[in-house]
Amino acid sequence: MEPYRGKIAIIGAGALGGYYGARLFQAGNDVHFLMRSDYATVRERGLRVFSCRGDFEIRPPVYDDPQAIGPVNLVIIGLKNTHNAALPGLLGPVVGPATTVLTLQNGLGNEEAIESALRDVGAMGAPCDLRSRIIGGVAFICSNRTGPGVIRHTDHGWVRLAEFAGESSERTAAIAEMFRLADIPCEVAGSLAAIRWEKLVWNVPFNGLGVAAAHADAGAVMGDEELLAVARGLMEEVVAGAQADGVTLDPALIDRMIDSTRTMGAYKSSMQLDYEAGRPIEIEAIMGEPLRRARRAGIAVPRLAFLYAVARRLDRLNRQGD
Amino acid sequence: MEPYRGKIAIIGAGALGGYYGARLFQAGNDVHFLMRSDYATVRERGLRVFSCRGDFEIRPPVYDDPQAIGPVNLVIIGLKNTHNAALPGLLGPVVGPATTVLTLQNGLGNEEAIESALRDVGAMGAPCDLRSRIIGGVAFICSNRTGPGVIRHTDHGWVRLAEFAGESSERTAAIAEMFRLADIPCEVAGSLAAIRWEKLVWNVPFNGLGVAAAHADAGAVMGDEELLAVARGLMEEVVAGAQADGVTLDPALIDRMIDSTRTMGAYKSSMQLDYEAGRPIEIEAIMGEPLRRARRAGIAVPRLAFLYAVARRLDRLNRQGD
Repeated sequence: MEPYRGKIAIIGAGALGGYYGARLFQAGNDVHFLMRSDYATVRERGLRVFSCRGDFEIRPPVYDDPQAIGPVNLVIIGLKNTHNAALPGLLGPVVGPATTVLTLQNGLGNEEAIESALRDVGAMGAPCDLRSRIIGGVAFICSNRTGPGVIRHTDHGWVRLAEFAGESSERTAAIAEMFRLADIPCEVAGSLAAIRWEKLVWNVPFNGLGVAAAHADAGAVMGDEELLAVARGLMEEVVAGAQADGVTLDPALIDRMIDSTRTMGAYKSSMQLDYEAGRPIEIEAIMGEPLRRARRAGIAVPRLAFLYAVARRLDRLNRQGD
Repeated sequence: MEPYRGKIAIIGAGALGGYYGARLFQAGNDVHFLMRSDYATVRERGLRVFSCRGDFEIRPPVYDDPQAIGPVNLVIIGLKNTHNAALPGLLGPVVGPATTVLTLQNGLGNEEAIESALRDVGAMGAPCDLRSRIIGGVAFICSNRTGPGVIRHTDHGWVRLAEFAGESSERTAAIAEMFRLADIPCEVAGSLAAIRWEKLVWNVPFNGLGVAAAHADAGAVMGDEELLAVARGLMEEVVAGAQADGVTLDPALIDRMIDSTRTMGAYKSSMQLDYEAGRPIEIEAIMGEPLRRARRAGIAVPRLAFLYAVARRLDRLNRQGD
């Protein structure tokens, strides 16, 4: 399999998009970074990655305006999905009639937001083609932006890709190969819904309770039998929600995830870190959209509804306090 | 019906026990107040009640040691049930073989705690007699201790009594008459479990969410459709828990309570006020014991379990911060 070749734009080059973009650039790909707060630093000093897979530093082309990048072949989106309303303005200048958009964002609804943004900007042919231009990616990575132009990558770092339109394509296989050649373990999955829902089985309880249960990090949940029972109940509700959305997950997944969480210690999810830093949390993609899909299917998800109601109030109060 | 006559001890003479004790004393009853922090003030200046039913001031016999009161005919308990572990020490000196104990405390499990305390202190005859000495009371009152020896009573103030042993007695009817003669609306109900569970239908969601949902007072719950749906779901679970505990509540109760809550505005429950003041909350009586009874009966109460888990963690963190 030949790797993908083409001009690439990274939209949202933080801990996630910045890390993957840097790996791709370092491997010789034509990667262009759109940055906001880190623009001046990276332009002057480059992007530094302190990684458990080896530290490195790059001096990539960096921009503070998507117009300056111009049309590309592949857009990789690492933006927090709390900023999805900005997608039309960000995508408009970089997409042409053949551009592929890969989102590495969390949760449900991102591909739909991208489809809607692409339709808004009118950059692609017939509406029926839009979905086939979109690839969803689930990223498993522990990384943080620890300062301007500095990313610290502490664990994992792999990616699973799947087509939004449902049919796997050579293009997606080539993108996966490009990732692998850049030292990013990557595989192509048959069902985007399956990989998204599977990740939610962990994210819903552990991101959610990290906000809604008085900042309970993974260790605090695991060490409290009542909270752990709530977490398990949430996982069961997500598995039921997935089923109603056409995805059959292995019920043994729940025990496996709980077991693997035991070793995490006082791990704080990205949602908890966002919340504690006063930033908006990705509540709609992680909780709101799964809840709405379960409700539309008539599935009872009382714990998810409770989690969403409390987290939504906390998120609102948190941002009012800014 | 002749009113009850006898020597009365008020154990826990705060906003609740202090108010009812003061009304009884003012009406000419032989009431003795056990106090802790307010002892010196009340001994020197008396107890002042600013009440929507008319202000008054009394200079009752007040004690800082139950030994000084000695055995009485009737003990009225207004203690926060977070202090129930102190019951044996408090009751021992004031109960004799014929003493009746009336608890005005909130939630489930108080009568059992009193029964256990009476057994511990060995003050009453055969164990099989103990239950018949205990009366449960549900108090509907808005009152606060606003300073040492000062109680502000703003609304309601009625009491419903029922026998712990299940059979109504002339004694309880006489106590109710004594209350009524002291300007305390009072009725005797046939089932203690019914009046306790009925009050929980409101207390579980509105006390619980006032702590667990980021200090959501009644108005905040009513104004948030997701939280209101959680509150309604909690009410349904309490009605189901009551049913499993042998109490059939009218399902229309839920709508009536929600409607009457609409007019409360930003009302903060006593649990929320306790939590915000850094005091322990009555979590076991209001949430833990109903949850355990529902679980023993095999009833699914996912929202109540969630509420309990979060409130328990918040309560623990709150008191660690002391």
